[in-house]
Amino acid sequence: MKTREIAEFLGGDLRGDGEVDIYGVAALKSADQGELAYLDRGRDLVESNASCVIVSSEEARQHYANSITVSDPKLAFAKVAAELHREDRKVQPNHPTAVIAESASVRADYVGAFVSVGENSYIGEGCRIHDGVRIGKNVNIRKFTVLHANSTVYDNVSIGDDCVIHSGAVIGADGFGYVKDENGIHVKFPQIGTVVIEDNVEIGANSCVDRGALGETRIGTGTKIDNLVQIAHNVQIGKNCIIVAMSGISGSSVLEDDVVLAGQVGIADHVTLKKGVVIAAKSAVYSNKVISNGIWAGIPARPVKAFKENFAALGSLPIIRREIRELKDRIESIEPFESE
Amino acid sequence: MKTREIAEFLGGDLRGDGEVDIYGVAALKSADQGELAYLDRGRDLVESNASCVIVSSEEARQHYANSITVSDPKLAFAKVAAELHREDRKVQPNHPTAVIAESASVRADYVGAFVSVGENSYIGEGCRIHDGVRIGKNVNIRKFTVLHANSTVYDNVSIGDDCVIHSGAVIGADGFGYVKDENGIHVKFPQIGTVVIEDNVEIGANSCVDRGALGETRIGTGTKIDNLVQIAHNVQIGKNCIIVAMSGISGSSVLEDDVVLAGQVGIADHVTLKKGVVIAAKSAVYSNKVISNGIWAGIPARPVKAFKENFAALGSLPIIRREIRELKDRIESIEPFESE
Amino acid sequence: MKTREIAEFLGGDLRGDGEVDIYGVAALKSADQGELAYLDRGRDLVESNASCVIVSSEEARQHYANSITVSDPKLAFAKVAAELHREDRKVQPNHPTAVIAESASVRADYVGAFVSVGENSYIGEGCRIHDGVRIGKNVNIRKFTVLHANSTVYDNVSIGDDCVIHSGAVIGADGFGYVKDENGIHVKFPQIGTVVIEDNVEIGANSCVDRGALGETRIGTGTKIDNLVQIAHNVQIGKNCIIVAMSGISGSSVLEDDVVLAGQVGIADHVTLKKGVVIAAKSAVYSNKVISNGIWAGIPARPVKAFKENFAALGSLPIIRREIRELKDRIESIEPFESE
Repeated sequence: MKTREIAEFLGGDLRGDGEVDIYGVAALKSADQGELAYLDRGRDLVESNASCVIVSSEEARQHYANSITVSDPKLAFAKVAAELHREDRKVQPNHPTAVIAESASVRADYVGAFVSVGENSYIGEGCRIHDGVRIGKNVNIRKFTVLHANSTVYDNVSIGDDCVIHSGAVIGADGFGYVKDENGIHVKFPQIGTVVIEDNVEIGANSCVDRGALGETRIGTGTKIDNLVQIAHNVQIGKNCIIVAMSGISGSSVLEDDVVLAGQVGIADHVTLKKGVVIAAKSAVYSNKVISNGIWAGIPARPVKAFKENFAALGSLPIIRREIRELKDRIESIEPFESE
Repeated sequence: MKTREIAEFLGGDLRGDGEVDIYGVAALKSADQGELAYLDRGRDLVESNASCVIVSSEEARQHYANSITVSDPKLAFAKVAAELHREDRKVQPNHPTAVIAESASVRADYVGAFVSVGENSYIGEGCRIHDGVRIGKNVNIRKFTVLHANSTVYDNVSIGDDCVIHSGAVIGADGFGYVKDENGIHVKFPQIGTVVIEDNVEIGANSCVDRGALGETRIGTGTKIDNLVQIAHNVQIGKNCIIVAMSGISGSSVLEDDVVLAGQVGIADHVTLKKGVVIAAKSAVYSNKVISNGIWAGIPARPVKAFKENFAALGSLPIIRREIRELKDRIESIEPFESE
Repeated sequence: MKTREIAEFLGGDLRGDGEVDIYGVAALKSADQGELAYLDRGRDLVESNASCVIVSSEEARQHYANSITVSDPKLAFAKVAAELHREDRKVQPNHPTAVIAESASVRADYVGAFVSVGENSYIGEGCRIHDGVRIGKNVNIRKFTVLHANSTVYDNVSIGDDCVIHSGAVIGADGFGYVKDENGIHVKFPQIGTVVIEDNVEIGANSCVDRGALGETRIGTGTKIDNLVQIAHNVQIGKNCIIVAMSGISGSSVLEDDVVLAGQVGIADHVTLKKGVVIAAKSAVYSNKVISNGIWAGIPARPVKAFKENFAALGSLPIIRREIRELKDRIESIEPFESE
């Protein structure tokens, strides 16, 4: 893309040479000729060899030989990067080692080596299925979705358009549910539901999304899930949620739209987090069954203001103990002498 | 199965038509013709299109056209579901792509595509080994055990009857043990022991069970392990334990029978949890080397009653600080005036 | 190896028969004829059938028929074990099912069944690549590195000499970075950097090391990483660090040399842990951006002494409340009577 084309793509204000060819993106400091960089809002100027810099301030606009001014440089940079680094979408023949059931219908751009696709599964156009991916029976994957190497999809799962499933992720394994019998033996409760992943969802490496026990586990459009995350059976996640690495959500809990779980968060079963709730890193929600708004933190989680006050108070306990000792002394000194 | 047969199987009391064919199980609300549902003890009546409902109360018995009365409907439902949804156990020829060492002995019902089985390994009758599973050398797997796609078993591991290992699980990787040498370099302590998994154990997706350093890591009969769980070298787990997702057990710790670890629990090394101990979610046991009974919670874990009191007290700290200020004022007002 | 050779190898003092053949190592209690065991410093004597015991005390030296005296028996034992149990390094032809790009250069001792190696990748001599491993394009793996079954390496990753990557580990998946657009949609920030793993690094089963967003994620020589660990994009880890299972390090954080993270630790983004810092199990570092030395514990982490004091104080809160009540009563009893 030429700088002129990038400015048009962004609806940004180009200063400098519009005919420079841009081949890729890079950080300001390490960028080279032919690369595009960006200076985030409010950051100090950084010298750069980038051929063009996306900026938001007049000062930055003046500083770089070629610049494009927009309101949010980081967002603009991300959008251009997606264009420039778009994974090569050329259609290739399926790898000859792939084992695809005769009853499956595969329209993907590419199916890699050692992939298996089970009976009656459907994979839509534009998908890329990398080496060693396992797709069970009756799986439905719509368009332009990417499954990275060695990821696994169990039977009867549905995945929408434009999703990315990273390596080692497991979609549709059995939920964890047992009923104790009269002898203390754990009898497996049926785990025969399914998983529905809507559009534009990303699921990180080695994350797990279990199938519903009887119903479905659902992940809403635009939700992004990091690595090593656990989503238990029958969880319902809304749109555009962010779930950072190593968080876990227990059975049947509900995350409405725009919820954020920072890293290593735990959500107990049958909890509802209303739209936009944020749970701070390393926190756990289990004593509140509904959290309506705001940022919550701690184990168990409480509003972040209370969490911080509690934490500060904890540090003040030695002072409190000293104050109590002083009060005792003062009372002692003014108490009337008591004889028996 | 006919309703009459289900009632016999459960030893339950059938009301209504005994000749209705039941093809599957479902939740009460979503059940359809031909499906069996259940109403859990103490729950309110729910309208249902299920062809038969397992119930425990007289009121529920009367409510549904066809019902089977038992003492524990959920348990009964789980048992029937296991019968109705039993995975098809027909014997199939091993997939032609499977690579099975000549010295291995495989009696499994089915070995899938791209499976590898190493030298001198044994897989008993009724096992199903799904696509992409890796089984090392000298592995012994008894009868009717299922290994799901892309799970991995290292050399010299033993797995019993009726186990289920989910996708991405890794059994028998090296334990994490090093000795620091004179230059601060971590020299690997030998990790040449093994893993023994007894009967009827389920291991969730992407969980890890490390081999013993010199001895063995053992998981007892009937124990159920959720996803993303870490079992370190030389851990000994008893029978019928429940280990919920994202919990980790450090080296050489012992869980006696019927122990429960809720989600995201951490157990330090060389800890013993006696029979029936329960550790609450997001807790960590490290300062107590033996926990004898009850429910424990917190970081570090203490008896749950103390944990709750501590937590409540923490919330009362602002009140305590106010009370101390008031006491100071009151003392001030009654202290004799002191001149110098 | 003969006992005499082992003593020479260790530079230790042999007592007894130098011509005994040693075939393997074992724990003292379970060792058999032909096996070497060790008695750790400061431990009580244990009877043993081992053919030779590595010891450090004069008493122990006298106790066993054949012994080798060194200053650190456990370290010596680890070193001998590495010699005796060295994995068979014989060169085997690549398995015929492996799919290796024509432009790749593979000098490994062994490439297993169903392995894929992408275009322009290089694998050095002495490497062993086990079954089902995925190696992307432009990957560079130096000498004597082992990749265990079903591990995955994305494109453009570099791995040094003598590393061990365990099963299910994923190296080089996309980092987790998004920019919110004007409609609340998460637009992916480019994740086009790389991962550099230096020499003698071990990475546990199902651990994840994400690629840099624009730059690199780096793991220094001699660092050991346990199972189910998450290393986010652009993290920089120094030499000889120890990262225990289920710990997670967020984007761009820095661990200098010799840092230890115990199990289930969380490190927020852009944090620096200086040389030799230790973070206790189940702790989280997020409010301090630089930790300079010592052992830290808690959520958020503070110096371990403060953590212990806080925890003890928390337990004393019921006492504090009682003391305040008593003070109130005493003041009450001496306050002048007030009428209105």
